[in-house]
Amino acid sequence: MTNQLTQCFQEMLPAIETEMKVVLQADGRSEDDLFGMMHYHMGWADEQFQPVQIKSGKRIRPVLCLLTCAAAGGDWQQALPAAAAVEILHNFSLIHDDIEDASPTRRGRTTLWQIWGMELAINCGDAMFALAHLALNRLIDRGVDAAIVVQAHRRFGETCVRLTQGQHADMSFEKRDRVSVDEYIEMITGKTAILLSHCAELGALVAGCDDETVVNYATFGRDLGLAFQVIDDILGIWGDEALTGKSAATDITTKKKTLPVLYGLGQDEVLRQLYQQSTANEAFVQQVVERLDQCGARDFATAKASTYSHSANHHLEATNPAGPAALALQQLTAMLLNRDF
Amino acid sequence: MTNQLTQCFQEMLPAIETEMKVVLQADGRSEDDLFGMMHYHMGWADEQFQPVQIKSGKRIRPVLCLLTCAAAGGDWQQALPAAAAVEILHNFSLIHDDIEDASPTRRGRTTLWQIWGMELAINCGDAMFALAHLALNRLIDRGVDAAIVVQAHRRFGETCVRLTQGQHADMSFEKRDRVSVDEYIEMITGKTAILLSHCAELGALVAGCDDETVVNYATFGRDLGLAFQVIDDILGIWGDEALTGKSAATDITTKKKTLPVLYGLGQDEVLRQLYQQSTANEAFVQQVVERLDQCGARDFATAKASTYSHSANHHLEATNPAGPAALALQQLTAMLLNRDF
Repeated sequence: MTNQLTQCFQEMLPAIETEMKVVLQADGRSEDDLFGMMHYHMGWADEQFQPVQIKSGKRIRPVLCLLTCAAAGGDWQQALPAAAAVEILHNFSLIHDDIEDASPTRRGRTTLWQIWGMELAINCGDAMFALAHLALNRLIDRGVDAAIVVQAHRRFGETCVRLTQGQHADMSFEKRDRVSVDEYIEMITGKTAILLSHCAELGALVAGCDDETVVNYATFGRDLGLAFQVIDDILGIWGDEALTGKSAATDITTKKKTLPVLYGLGQDEVLRQLYQQSTANEAFVQQVVERLDQCGARDFATAKASTYSHSANHHLEATNPAGPAALALQQLTAMLLNRDF
Repeated sequence: MTNQLTQCFQEMLPAIETEMKVVLQADGRSEDDLFGMMHYHMGWADEQFQPVQIKSGKRIRPVLCLLTCAAAGGDWQQALPAAAAVEILHNFSLIHDDIEDASPTRRGRTTLWQIWGMELAINCGDAMFALAHLALNRLIDRGVDAAIVVQAHRRFGETCVRLTQGQHADMSFEKRDRVSVDEYIEMITGKTAILLSHCAELGALVAGCDDETVVNYATFGRDLGLAFQVIDDILGIWGDEALTGKSAATDITTKKKTLPVLYGLGQDEVLRQLYQQSTANEAFVQQVVERLDQCGARDFATAKASTYSHSANHHLEATNPAGPAALALQQLTAMLLNRDF
């Protein structure tokens, strides 16, 4: 991380953690099992609800929210309730995603539903979803104008609906043979990009920006998210194992329908047959990667990533971000996008 | 139903349905599967998402909200977003409850998770939860003051958390041998009473009542809910089959831990042994009911119901409700509480 960004992270992370702990009653107020399960999920407690310190998530989303607020001329401390809200929302969605995907582990730890059962885990996610809304409501306690808080609640709720639409599409795609590139972009907009968009949007709303600036920040966040996801898709096939930590072509081994694959399936009949008939052994992986290269899937995805990346930077510039936070925001964008591919 | 109440229901029900249909995009705006699942759950569509008219829920909660608003001197039409919000919230909770309880049917129809699978149903519930918050947010569009909308959002979120606490307790109690009467009352407060409390509270908030009146309405709703639940518990053991539609002593056959049973288990060692050892055959049911009568469980529960019922009426009177809505509110209370027991 570059200097300015590191400094912002160091300043903001403890404040975000404190705000979330107050909302999730991890400040000693609650010894309730239901809250204990949330504390476990957040990396603040072990299975016996005893305090632990575990590396839990990178908190990119709340930091994006606070940096946007500051770059837009606001006081980032005032946006802390919004930052806590998006991170709690993100964590709620992970609890339910893990159940829906039957994932046994998350960040190297056993998932909630594996320990306490699916029933209690669904309900724990619901509690956390409700608490995300309550986190946002605390904007009023920081002196944010009531009309802005109401607007923030509306956009937060609309974002939640988009998240569930993305998740619905993702689960539905697994059962379908053909998914178009446009449908895929719509799905990852809901699953990934919309929440990053909302982080920037909330920061701008709290800073009191005019509508045009708020929309520019929201578009910046969305295209940043889309670029990030498409780059992730490219790295999942052509990434350097040493850099990504994943084995090369891992998304081919799992037959995951990412952007390059979907593009390829739309172009190449041989590839379609391969995906329908073959088991995913080493020969399969080699053949698939070859055909993807030949049909231009890598070039297509790289061009897409580049378009989104440029659009993100363009919309960020259009907001005329100011001060050290602006620099940190540019550095965060660069860090998320300039990965090796 | 008595005359005034019938008239209010006839006037309010179509308005509630219209408001909910706009929020849940059942007004022709969406042909999305995710929304189709919600329309099925609400009784507006069949499994193929074709429009149907099915008797779906009694809508007691939203009517309570609107009647409170009117009785407190407000315009009930202004409270429609709040009424829609509580009914959508209630319906969301049913989707997740049905998964958690593995219930195959609800209101005589196959449950959502049975048709579309547990994964999509969890996510559909989440969408509906988000939409309940968005329903509430529409108060601002009806001219309700922004500060009141923010306050409504806070109390709505806190109510959601209490609901999940009630559900957590309910699921946990099933695995425990002993549950105290106080723990049980706390659980049914979360599962049942808190939402009725919130219906009345929201109505009063929209009407612009002072804090004391809002608290009186909230307490009225809570104790109405507690009285209703305890009466339900009594009817589950001693109810007249012809009146309740359930077979007599149905809660004994299923070994359900309701208030009279928990009281009895706390008093009577023989009853404890019966519950631990015996299968629930006819002789078991007869023995249990005898011992419950002997140890005073029926009297205890009847006294509790009476206390909550009086408290509900007392707090309603303390608000000085006015006009035809006040009469309808009293009639609704009487209808819910004066059941045969």
